[in-house]
Amino acid sequence: MTTMFGLDESVVAPLMRAIAGAELTTSEVEDRFARASWTGIAEPGDRTAGEIVAALGAATALTTVVEHWPVERTEEALGATGAAVPVAELAAATDRWMPRLKSAIALTALRQAARFRVRLLVPGDPAWPAGFDDLGEHAPLALWLRGNESTLETLPASIALVGARAATGYGEHVTMEASAGLVDRGYTIVSGAAYGIDGMAHRAALASSGQTVAFLAGGVDRFYPSGHDVLLTRIVEVGAVVSELPCGSPPTKWRFLQRNRLIAASSLATVVLEAGWRSGSLNTAGHAATLGRPLGAVPGPVTSAASAGCHRLIREFDAVCVTSADEMAELAPLRPLGGGEEPRGEMGRSSEQVRVLDALSSRSPRSVDDIAARCGLSVTTVTSVLGTMQLDGQARESDRGWTRCR
Amino acid sequence: MTTMFGLDESVVAPLMRAIAGAELTTSEVEDRFARASWTGIAEPGDRTAGEIVAALGAATALTTVVEHWPVERTEEALGATGAAVPVAELAAATDRWMPRLKSAIALTALRQAARFRVRLLVPGDPAWPAGFDDLGEHAPLALWLRGNESTLETLPASIALVGARAATGYGEHVTMEASAGLVDRGYTIVSGAAYGIDGMAHRAALASSGQTVAFLAGGVDRFYPSGHDVLLTRIVEVGAVVSELPCGSPPTKWRFLQRNRLIAASSLATVVLEAGWRSGSLNTAGHAATLGRPLGAVPGPVTSAASAGCHRLIREFDAVCVTSADEMAELAPLRPLGGGEEPRGEMGRSSEQVRVLDALSSRSPRSVDDIAARCGLSVTTVTSVLGTMQLDGQARESDRGWTRCR
Repeated sequence: MTTMFGLDESVVAPLMRAIAGAELTTSEVEDRFARASWTGIAEPGDRTAGEIVAALGAATALTTVVEHWPVERTEEALGATGAAVPVAELAAATDRWMPRLKSAIALTALRQAARFRVRLLVPGDPAWPAGFDDLGEHAPLALWLRGNESTLETLPASIALVGARAATGYGEHVTMEASAGLVDRGYTIVSGAAYGIDGMAHRAALASSGQTVAFLAGGVDRFYPSGHDVLLTRIVEVGAVVSELPCGSPPTKWRFLQRNRLIAASSLATVVLEAGWRSGSLNTAGHAATLGRPLGAVPGPVTSAASAGCHRLIREFDAVCVTSADEMAELAPLRPLGGGEEPRGEMGRSSEQVRVLDALSSRSPRSVDDIAARCGLSVTTVTSVLGTMQLDGQARESDRGWTRCR
Repeated sequence: MTTMFGLDESVVAPLMRAIAGAELTTSEVEDRFARASWTGIAEPGDRTAGEIVAALGAATALTTVVEHWPVERTEEALGATGAAVPVAELAAATDRWMPRLKSAIALTALRQAARFRVRLLVPGDPAWPAGFDDLGEHAPLALWLRGNESTLETLPASIALVGARAATGYGEHVTMEASAGLVDRGYTIVSGAAYGIDGMAHRAALASSGQTVAFLAGGVDRFYPSGHDVLLTRIVEVGAVVSELPCGSPPTKWRFLQRNRLIAASSLATVVLEAGWRSGSLNTAGHAATLGRPLGAVPGPVTSAASAGCHRLIREFDAVCVTSADEMAELAPLRPLGGGEEPRGEMGRSSEQVRVLDALSSRSPRSVDDIAARCGLSVTTVTSVLGTMQLDGQARESDRGWTRCR
């Protein structure tokens, strides 16, 4: 059952061990090679690929399509697993995958990965993001990572900060405060490394010596956007740059949209900091909402087109209006908010005190009768309220009457 | 049953007719005089006053307290009406009202009203705001009005625009756009004539030749704030300036808070345009919410303290995030939104089209096989999608392959 595009194990195994960073059994080599190949064959989020890999395992699933198993054998294999993948759907998918079923593509990606010290992560690895479980058949089949696996292990305490590339000074300022504030509170910052809000989120996290993870829409061997080469190189040093696409894959519009689901699924909550009416970050927000993750949006001037998407999220999609790192942290508290919380301080004045205070002057002393007439309370009530206010230092009595203390 | 503080009908009746702007029967004179007196005796929102006036009528209620009916007689009178006003509560209230039970006070207020051509409105008058019914026992017992009664008749199509006195240029700009936009859509603008947002709301309504109503916290004979003398004089000319307090009453903190309930109750919806964390306009918002009126808040920069109250309303009190006059009008549509609404225009591209589009270049022609490999779709699917896109003018075929149309 070695469907490695006809490649010899002696070629594949050393490469797989290099990019796993560990010794591997033969079946582990097969599984990892198959998953690595799948990331180049099926587009991100391909449900059929997810279903047959889940049913048959990555290696057998690959054999099925590469060797073009006859319908009977495929049905039999799937039937044995209880999987409900219609064979017609599988046939259509195989047509879709066909143009990419070449050993050369898989091998080039693996060699490029080894050259850039890229790691391959598969489900079950300690660093595999637990949040991906919620993606079901749309979960990635493997992840390609540059940087520190340990950073991915901090994802259970992470918040995604995303937003428009065309950010304003306001948006960047708010993002900087938010990212630094969340890092101070122990959160890892997840984003997409784009210009504008994403870049600022990563940058501020790095500046605060925080953990940060960038999900890319293409292979991690070439950074996108290229203007963020330096930033992404720094993220690789202290954080992690991750993609579900193999080395050599260019980012495409579709892949950006699918990449957004990884940002939403890997973090506890997603916050959109600035977004135009049709910004791509609304797509990330949509994924967060679909996954049942808390979703926040930062308001801005209604006169700024760069905040229109945030207002839309608050207005139409029930996003929580968040205005500070504290409020963002409340979306996904790291510790349960224990009891013993103090009620918010109020003025602590009764309505009668407010009315008596209104009726007092700080210059002209007034009689109790006069005060009672002015505030519309009985003489008895006014006398009693004035007594309390005298104790509190709010009112003072002289032989000419009562005055208000400044 | 003529409890007019011992005043002769020949003194009272001409005054009452003058400020009613109509002929009145003797019992109407009595009722209106009693209500006018009550507005000077009980502070705004006095529940006990509301209850006994509702139970006994304004005139008899006044007799009860002025003549200090013995407990038995009061209980008997209330019992006959089925009203549930505990006599102890009434006794406490009478103590409260006592300092103001003077004919001179009532008479001065009436004379001042006549001098300023102030009208007295009572429940049942055509111009009486229907929304006040929702205030129950907290409804005002009468209203004092300067300006045009007809403006009050437009309140069933009104929106309250309120906000902080310490408004920013941003807040004033948004208020101006909102007020003018709502006037254009047929709404009357209700507000409180304060500096800042309120003043701008009235001003922009007047500038757009719209209807506007200002509710004051003191008597309508002296305008508050005095810096809005000219503005309020213009509102009197084309709109209405209204208060539940008789002429001569100064505004007090308590009265501002109670005035806010009239703003919320008289209009279909309330919108807060700019408000600090503890702004008084949050009190108006609270009244609107309590009354079940739609509540909107305009977001602003999170770096602006003047928007903190608006964000708080959206975040903690479920206010709707509104960013334009259109969205404010949606809070309280003047006409039911009939069917036949077009769904919002989307890009209208299928996910396959997005993926094929990604794989096309606008410069280098590509073969179908190449496109299929790039976008991860079958050759059959790509051929069919390209066909559709060619019809739509999105893709073009030449003898060297397919290109994307710009």
